[in-house]
Amino acid sequence: MAYTIGLDYGTNSVRCLIVDTATGEELGTAVYEYETGEVGIILDPQDHNLARQNPADYLKGIEITVKEAVEQARNVKRFDPAKIVGIGVDTTGSTPLPVDKNGIPLGLLDEFKNNPNAMAWLWKDHTGYEEAAKITEQAAKDRPQYLAKCGGTYSSEWFFSKIWHCLKADPKVFDAAFTWVEHSDWIPAVLTGTDKPKDLKRDRCAAGHKAMFNDDWGGYPDAEFLSKLDPKLGSLRKSLSDTTQAVDKAAGNLTAEWATKLGLTAGIPVAMGAFDAHLGAVGSGIKEGVLVKIIGTSTCDMVVAPTSAKLPDIPGICGIVDSSILPGFYGLEAGQSAVGDIFNWFVNYIQAGGKEAGSHQSLTQKAEKLKPGQSGLLALDWNNGNRTILVDQRLTGMLLGQTLHTRPEEIYRALVEATAFGALTIINRFQEYGVRIDEVVNCGGISEKNAMLMQIYADVTGREMKVSRSAQTCALGAAICGTVVAGKKAGGHDNFAEAQKAMCGIKSVSFKPIPANQKVYTELYKLYKQLHDAFGIAGHSGVLSNVMKDLLAIKEGVNG
Amino acid sequence: MAYTIGLDYGTNSVRCLIVDTATGEELGTAVYEYETGEVGIILDPQDHNLARQNPADYLKGIEITVKEAVEQARNVKRFDPAKIVGIGVDTTGSTPLPVDKNGIPLGLLDEFKNNPNAMAWLWKDHTGYEEAAKITEQAAKDRPQYLAKCGGTYSSEWFFSKIWHCLKADPKVFDAAFTWVEHSDWIPAVLTGTDKPKDLKRDRCAAGHKAMFNDDWGGYPDAEFLSKLDPKLGSLRKSLSDTTQAVDKAAGNLTAEWATKLGLTAGIPVAMGAFDAHLGAVGSGIKEGVLVKIIGTSTCDMVVAPTSAKLPDIPGICGIVDSSILPGFYGLEAGQSAVGDIFNWFVNYIQAGGKEAGSHQSLTQKAEKLKPGQSGLLALDWNNGNRTILVDQRLTGMLLGQTLHTRPEEIYRALVEATAFGALTIINRFQEYGVRIDEVVNCGGISEKNAMLMQIYADVTGREMKVSRSAQTCALGAAICGTVVAGKKAGGHDNFAEAQKAMCGIKSVSFKPIPANQKVYTELYKLYKQLHDAFGIAGHSGVLSNVMKDLLAIKEGVNG
Repeated sequence: MAYTIGLDYGTNSVRCLIVDTATGEELGTAVYEYETGEVGIILDPQDHNLARQNPADYLKGIEITVKEAVEQARNVKRFDPAKIVGIGVDTTGSTPLPVDKNGIPLGLLDEFKNNPNAMAWLWKDHTGYEEAAKITEQAAKDRPQYLAKCGGTYSSEWFFSKIWHCLKADPKVFDAAFTWVEHSDWIPAVLTGTDKPKDLKRDRCAAGHKAMFNDDWGGYPDAEFLSKLDPKLGSLRKSLSDTTQAVDKAAGNLTAEWATKLGLTAGIPVAMGAFDAHLGAVGSGIKEGVLVKIIGTSTCDMVVAPTSAKLPDIPGICGIVDSSILPGFYGLEAGQSAVGDIFNWFVNYIQAGGKEAGSHQSLTQKAEKLKPGQSGLLALDWNNGNRTILVDQRLTGMLLGQTLHTRPEEIYRALVEATAFGALTIINRFQEYGVRIDEVVNCGGISEKNAMLMQIYADVTGREMKVSRSAQTCALGAAICGTVVAGKKAGGHDNFAEAQKAMCGIKSVSFKPIPANQKVYTELYKLYKQLHDAFGIAGHSGVLSNVMKDLLAIKEGVNG
Repeated sequence: MAYTIGLDYGTNSVRCLIVDTATGEELGTAVYEYETGEVGIILDPQDHNLARQNPADYLKGIEITVKEAVEQARNVKRFDPAKIVGIGVDTTGSTPLPVDKNGIPLGLLDEFKNNPNAMAWLWKDHTGYEEAAKITEQAAKDRPQYLAKCGGTYSSEWFFSKIWHCLKADPKVFDAAFTWVEHSDWIPAVLTGTDKPKDLKRDRCAAGHKAMFNDDWGGYPDAEFLSKLDPKLGSLRKSLSDTTQAVDKAAGNLTAEWATKLGLTAGIPVAMGAFDAHLGAVGSGIKEGVLVKIIGTSTCDMVVAPTSAKLPDIPGICGIVDSSILPGFYGLEAGQSAVGDIFNWFVNYIQAGGKEAGSHQSLTQKAEKLKPGQSGLLALDWNNGNRTILVDQRLTGMLLGQTLHTRPEEIYRALVEATAFGALTIINRFQEYGVRIDEVVNCGGISEKNAMLMQIYADVTGREMKVSRSAQTCALGAAICGTVVAGKKAGGHDNFAEAQKAMCGIKSVSFKPIPANQKVYTELYKLYKQLHDAFGIAGHSGVLSNVMKDLLAIKEGVNG
């Protein structure tokens, strides 16, 4: 009998999960909501692009959640914290923190403790959008190979856009930073006492997907290239290591200090970190041919493909990185910048504060009675930009087809459908480039709670929507990493395939496409694609005067 | 001392106004809300195009409102109902009623009293949209001159579209009808006992604007043309008279029976009816060079031009009709299918039932603090189609530029701005075709109550927005018609210019364009026009990928 811990840092909270390595049974789980800012995020009312987090919340969350989860696990008689054999960690990303020469985040120092620029730059911080555009431009000119692996466009959500923006917006913070560390590297480093810059290991997932790291060109972008952006960025290059590790490697071993604090055994291995979505895919049982959709405030759409078969570069896919999800496979990451966030926006802000009549539940109850096409509405799911396949944060939402009779539940359904159309666009892009998708497994709160959404996704994509058995797949994936770095001898597993077989599963209820709905959505998707291309592709020219008429014709066909 | 009565039939109620012919002073006013249906409109939940009214409500409204207004006027000492010298009537339109051989509306007969098809077909009934398209098609082929006078497209809101739709949808009603009468003809006819088909006079305004009546081709469309649509429509032609009268002519004299019922003097003249917007323009002091905007649930935009100068046909202008507003002038009618209706839709339905926080007042308070361009939003004002200049009921609304931070007041303001852009598009069209617009006078509830809207209209159009002194310009215009048919000798006036000079006026507060706002709106209007043409003009091809980016750039320019 052995157990493993997954620490899962989400956008608003951190979760600790304790799992049985033999069965995947979840014995204890605890959540800590970050305390700083608005639901854990430091915002700036003057700048909607800004989103930061306090690293102190990250530290406090470890102690609180691990202790509470252990206490909970004690309800299971056979459990003993001494039998916890490993720890895995996932975080959001790219969420880099500036650290000093001792590896201490600047935001924890008195000098910078009230400066948002010294904090963690949360994944959804878009302040670096101008820098992102310039990086894309420069790379297109000088290093096209960098762009080819990240979908052709470097995003404002990523490592160097943020760092460069800090350099411009707050040079004092930039100059005080010895280097910048991803949240996913910092936590394992802290737990294992390897957080000094000289000891720090960088994980493959964050570096490969967000920082243009690739062994083909010797790791991170070269200093010459970075210097062209800004000489100070060129100088930063030497603080970034030349190697990275995947999640089958340990960052180190739990320090005595942390072991005491948490009531665990000192010296157990802590796996290299990775992003939440990547380990969510692991916890959902990802393997070749399986698309894992992690549906929350945004989505991540994860696929793996064997490194033995050379993949072409795929335009608009955020990253293709060797071993970023499963060792030995390319990890392919796509996603939608907002999904649940769009529904929350509509409920919380537009529907007058989400009162009774305008709650998710009430709107869903009414919306699920509508037939596809019945509202005459069509929306674009770009309220937070478009991550895949357009890779453009500077796109915005759109709703079309409103009449004086349009009701909130119709808009709500149209927003859900828009995200389904966005999901289909991603699947299509993978397939166009030869990536196998035989099966779709969903995870994340929305996939568990919203049967209407799951059915719409099945109808729009024409594919069965399966749902992961665990409600906490990211944390489960992290826990699986903990078992792999522990190894079979210690009570873990020797590889991911074995660990997933033992610890992952699918719910018995799934959602199959309904042919009649599928037929209408095929028509609606054509119109969505027209709008998508017209508003999303620079210089795209075409006729749109059919869109409103076609929507009315579909509506009348459904009603008639 | 003499007085006149204006009877004003609106979409949800009828109003009676008693006015001093010498000063325009309003001595008494009373309103009756129609009782049948939802706020006076018979709807069909299965068919959003259907909107009918019960003629019984029209009759009941006369008695209730005239008596109450007279009672109210008695508070003014000098007033005496015996000194009421004339009556004028305006109604919505095209609102035709099927009547039997005695002139009785079928909806008042037991046989049809529960049949919506036997009722008045309210102006905003769009059930005849297919018939409208076919009329347009047939006329384009055989009688292009018919179309040239009504903007190139025959509308589903108009006389023959409705009658033909009835013929197809409910032949029993069609066959039972001896003829069809406009609401604006029926009321004066009833009051003067001229409602038998052989006595009935048809007014120039309704016939000219909505039924393709023109002296150039001998009145209504010829039987041959109508027979091509349907032989039964051809047969109906002979029930329509070959002449029409403008509002300076009396329909007849008040019958003894009605005089007794209302407490008025038998024999006083009742003017020919006209549409509410046309008499609203009269009540607002319309003359050459003045655009009168009647802003309510929808708008009507009215202009006159001297018949001495030949006007070109103007594409998209709903009608150019000799003497339809002022005798001796062409009456030009344009309009927006929904204005107040769009704001009501947002407040009543989308903002969760218009509770406190989501009321017009609360939203306006917040929206007026926003700067032009600050929200990054852009909307199309087509939730009820587009009357002018696209003449297309089958267009729908659109909102673009939403982010996760978009707030209801931003949407509210974007909807107001969209209607302002629609208003500018109409002004531009008039001017492109040489119609003088030196001055803009607004009337209708919204122009009085919503200073934010008026300022936005001034900023968007770059013109001063004046507001009519009377709050009841349609009824005042009708009352003016009453004085003109009475004549100076009886205490009225001999012509409209004299009557308007005595009885109309402008409020002292007006709204002047603010140059800084005007500049931003010039940019936003370019983007509106791009969307307008892309979605509204069949086959229009172009690039739209700039729209979302330009909106963000404008937003940042305003905020920065």
